[in-house]
Amino acid sequence: MKMSNMLISTLREVPAEAEIESHKLMLRAGMMRKMAAGVYNYMPLGLKVLKNIEDVVREEMNAAGAQEFLASAMIPAELWQESGRWDAYGAEMFRLKDRNQRDFCLGPTHEEVFTDIARNEIKSYKQLPLNLYQIQTKYRDERRPRFGIMRSREFIMKDAYSFDKDEAGLDVSFNKMHAAYVSIFNRCGLDAKCVEADSGAIGGSNSAEFMVKSEVGEDDIVFCTACDYAANIEKAPSTPDMGEKEELKELRKTETPNARTIEELVNFFNCSKKNFAKTLLFNVDGKVIAVMVRGDREVNETKVSNVLGGAVEFEMADEEMVRKATGAAIGFAGPIGIKVDELLVDTEVVNMYNFIVGANETGYHFENVNYGRDFEGKVGDYRNITIGEKCPHCGEEITISRGTEVGHIFKLGTKYSESMNANFIDEDGKSRPFMMGCYGIGITRTMASIIEQHHDDNGIVWPLSVAPYHVTVIPVNIKDENQMKIAEEIYGKLKKMGVDVIMDDRNERAGVKFKDADLMGVPMRITVGKKIVDGEVEFKLRNEADTEVIAIETVASRVEEIFAKNNLSL
Amino acid sequence: MKMSNMLISTLREVPAEAEIESHKLMLRAGMMRKMAAGVYNYMPLGLKVLKNIEDVVREEMNAAGAQEFLASAMIPAELWQESGRWDAYGAEMFRLKDRNQRDFCLGPTHEEVFTDIARNEIKSYKQLPLNLYQIQTKYRDERRPRFGIMRSREFIMKDAYSFDKDEAGLDVSFNKMHAAYVSIFNRCGLDAKCVEADSGAIGGSNSAEFMVKSEVGEDDIVFCTACDYAANIEKAPSTPDMGEKEELKELRKTETPNARTIEELVNFFNCSKKNFAKTLLFNVDGKVIAVMVRGDREVNETKVSNVLGGAVEFEMADEEMVRKATGAAIGFAGPIGIKVDELLVDTEVVNMYNFIVGANETGYHFENVNYGRDFEGKVGDYRNITIGEKCPHCGEEITISRGTEVGHIFKLGTKYSESMNANFIDEDGKSRPFMMGCYGIGITRTMASIIEQHHDDNGIVWPLSVAPYHVTVIPVNIKDENQMKIAEEIYGKLKKMGVDVIMDDRNERAGVKFKDADLMGVPMRITVGKKIVDGEVEFKLRNEADTEVIAIETVASRVEEIFAKNNLSL
Repeated sequence: MKMSNMLISTLREVPAEAEIESHKLMLRAGMMRKMAAGVYNYMPLGLKVLKNIEDVVREEMNAAGAQEFLASAMIPAELWQESGRWDAYGAEMFRLKDRNQRDFCLGPTHEEVFTDIARNEIKSYKQLPLNLYQIQTKYRDERRPRFGIMRSREFIMKDAYSFDKDEAGLDVSFNKMHAAYVSIFNRCGLDAKCVEADSGAIGGSNSAEFMVKSEVGEDDIVFCTACDYAANIEKAPSTPDMGEKEELKELRKTETPNARTIEELVNFFNCSKKNFAKTLLFNVDGKVIAVMVRGDREVNETKVSNVLGGAVEFEMADEEMVRKATGAAIGFAGPIGIKVDELLVDTEVVNMYNFIVGANETGYHFENVNYGRDFEGKVGDYRNITIGEKCPHCGEEITISRGTEVGHIFKLGTKYSESMNANFIDEDGKSRPFMMGCYGIGITRTMASIIEQHHDDNGIVWPLSVAPYHVTVIPVNIKDENQMKIAEEIYGKLKKMGVDVIMDDRNERAGVKFKDADLMGVPMRITVGKKIVDGEVEFKLRNEADTEVIAIETVASRVEEIFAKNNLSL
Repeated sequence: MKMSNMLISTLREVPAEAEIESHKLMLRAGMMRKMAAGVYNYMPLGLKVLKNIEDVVREEMNAAGAQEFLASAMIPAELWQESGRWDAYGAEMFRLKDRNQRDFCLGPTHEEVFTDIARNEIKSYKQLPLNLYQIQTKYRDERRPRFGIMRSREFIMKDAYSFDKDEAGLDVSFNKMHAAYVSIFNRCGLDAKCVEADSGAIGGSNSAEFMVKSEVGEDDIVFCTACDYAANIEKAPSTPDMGEKEELKELRKTETPNARTIEELVNFFNCSKKNFAKTLLFNVDGKVIAVMVRGDREVNETKVSNVLGGAVEFEMADEEMVRKATGAAIGFAGPIGIKVDELLVDTEVVNMYNFIVGANETGYHFENVNYGRDFEGKVGDYRNITIGEKCPHCGEEITISRGTEVGHIFKLGTKYSESMNANFIDEDGKSRPFMMGCYGIGITRTMASIIEQHHDDNGIVWPLSVAPYHVTVIPVNIKDENQMKIAEEIYGKLKKMGVDVIMDDRNERAGVKFKDADLMGVPMRITVGKKIVDGEVEFKLRNEADTEVIAIETVASRVEEIFAKNNLSL
């Protein structure tokens, strides 16, 4: 395409609304524009990249034997009521009514829809396995949409749902998707690490996330410094710090008038955080749950939720609830005499001696508290792993980075097929629920993540595989007929070869054109200038600093070479 | 793809929910399934056809210089309030609120969004002309969703918006789209007739619809029996029947106790419908509008609305309004002494003599009424043209057929750019509103219309250009190793050639496979059976009755031949 006919909306200034590089660059390069908070319009340049990513995803999904489907974004409430998620989903689900006052939502995900399709269309084990996927717009009313399409309210997702007759089949389906995802992110030039993720009430190693490192990511990812272990912090098991065994001292109640927080208590008792066990109270679906962890630790809500069999609402208990459970103001909760629905005690606390806890009395704490002698509870791993702890695989030190999820593969088992009565007839004539898996990739988020990993001070540096255009041909002076003639020839030849090429024939200075080409991130730039008198043009790769001068007749083979280097065919 | 791995959901029975052939066949062939009234999920087979139609549309739009864009389906209310359509759109617009109680709609169309984009991105005449299009999901809460995807509430549309600096530019853009639409429907094998359509308050011949004949269409299309004139009945001008001039008789009030309807009056007065002029009262945006047409004619609401400068709400006046305007019960309205905001008189009535009208008094009519002497009003063409009237182009007889709109091209002029303050700087440094056009194609409706025009008793007969698969290879007996080997070879060879081929390797009787292939409408069928001992297979076109026996080695060239015949390349 000729750029004089294109809607080019590059911006020189950094838009105030953008905080992270991908967001800034997508706005500056004119790839998208904001319609409302977390809702974007894709301009031609941005849409081209999206379509390229979609094509990679589609190819790999098809190669893995999945079949493309397209479900409605509008889903009737009845399906969600069947699965029990209509009420559970909360404010994140966009809901609406039609003219007859029937309830619908805009699908935040499609487990219910595909389970419904399977129960209607699949009767026999002979039709299994089956994997249906779609590339479709999803809606989630995020509390804080931010960072452009990294955390938006309307986004494009590839979601796939597999149906198998048994667990062995599900394993095969899951592994195929795992392999497909590795290929997809590789082909998109995205360094996405596959990490173990929490799989909720289903348990086992049934869930994996594909994460990219990101300062603004919403997740903490645990990496081993020695082996290839990687897991979401929600999932990574902690290793209890085994304190030195001590003689049990006598329990003592101490007045601590102005000390409520761990910091205040550390000052008051003049000791370390490690000498305390804090008791945190949560309101989990209306029940009061107390969780004890060492004073310097953080409660892991996912681990707590899992031991409770799953939770819909999980929040800190309010003052009234705390007062009812402890008989005291906030800041004095402890395990001795507390009235809660469940007292969960982190394994590490069991291995502490003579520690300090709240006394369930305003202004008092207990000293010399010991598990077993003074209180008991349900013991388990309820805390976040911390930097320097042991890798659960090899025992070496772990480290933690922030990350953003770009893909998630998940064994659902029979969670939805059972609740929605989705069955097939097995070889033995018996009716059984489908073994299901679900597999998501955030297409729009993948695009933003690629930019996060591929940019420099001048703009985006697209991998050739997803670039909006492969090559830009820039005549330095559009009033020079010879330059224009050569530029047109190169443009025409490359186009004929199947190269996605643009020509910057705008009446602008060469500097402006170079700046725009760099900002837009086109991988190859061919500059047609004064050197044409020697039969030469300039050839520059966006991801390299140097400019080569090459003979005009070698342009085509040079471009082919770059394609080959990138394992791409024309 | 091998059919044993595909989700095949063909049905032998005709589903009760379907009334028209395309709807029945899309369900029977397993192309889609209903999710809710007017909301459908597309199964793999149906989605493939949709994508093929989309590709044709995309190619022709790109060739016409339009650029693909993708706007959000969720649109903030503010944009619609600016254009004045938030209140005007009524119950047909799906509306929702986000978690912060901000109003959004699900876009039924995108004029506001693209006008907003233009005013933000286009500053100068140098950036014009520009045509932006998208292929995207639209939402309209139809009162009566029916006929499958022919009239659904969620549907896929290609909508384009052109921006020009002046009318001459808009003419060029409009004509390019006209040509593109002709190509698109031709390539899709759809016989769509371009007809003149009403362009509302803008006037002129600025709007054209692409219509397909259909018994269940929502529009009446006027065709000339002699020339190529075609128009929507909303638009087609009527020709007044010039009655013989008569001596004006004396006005007479007559008691007509039980006669209110035209039929009852015809009996009562023992004369023809043509002797009456009926006076119909409408509530148009709160005003009372009376429209007079001859007793046997129908009021054309579009023509009435246009003369009033456009109308949002247009409905029959209720009893209270009628009583207020006429002082009488419904059935006795007439022009003499009526109290209305506007009295519109069809031209034909002006040329009637000594006719009968209501007397604005319950139980009475006037006889020997004459325009000019007894009453006056705003004269114009306010009625539908009828079969046998004169073609406005050549004067020959017209005829009328029902039709369904599959495309619409429309000169918007400055309607939206003015109301939304969307301007650019012209050559002379002055700020001017964009001259806009909009151009829609119902992708899903096009798919249904193709089926309406291409099916037989056995199923769909897809044009090769949009068929879900080009060729199906059917081994008669999958337990016969030789048949399977030959079938695999043919399948592999065609696939390599770029043919979209499936192989029916299911463990089913050949009859079942033939039936499914016919139902699904695959254009070419290659049957691998006993004749392989003679080196032969059967070759059958879906749209021809005969089966040919051909040599195995000629299969590829036979397929190529069919592609060439259809002007398609591989």
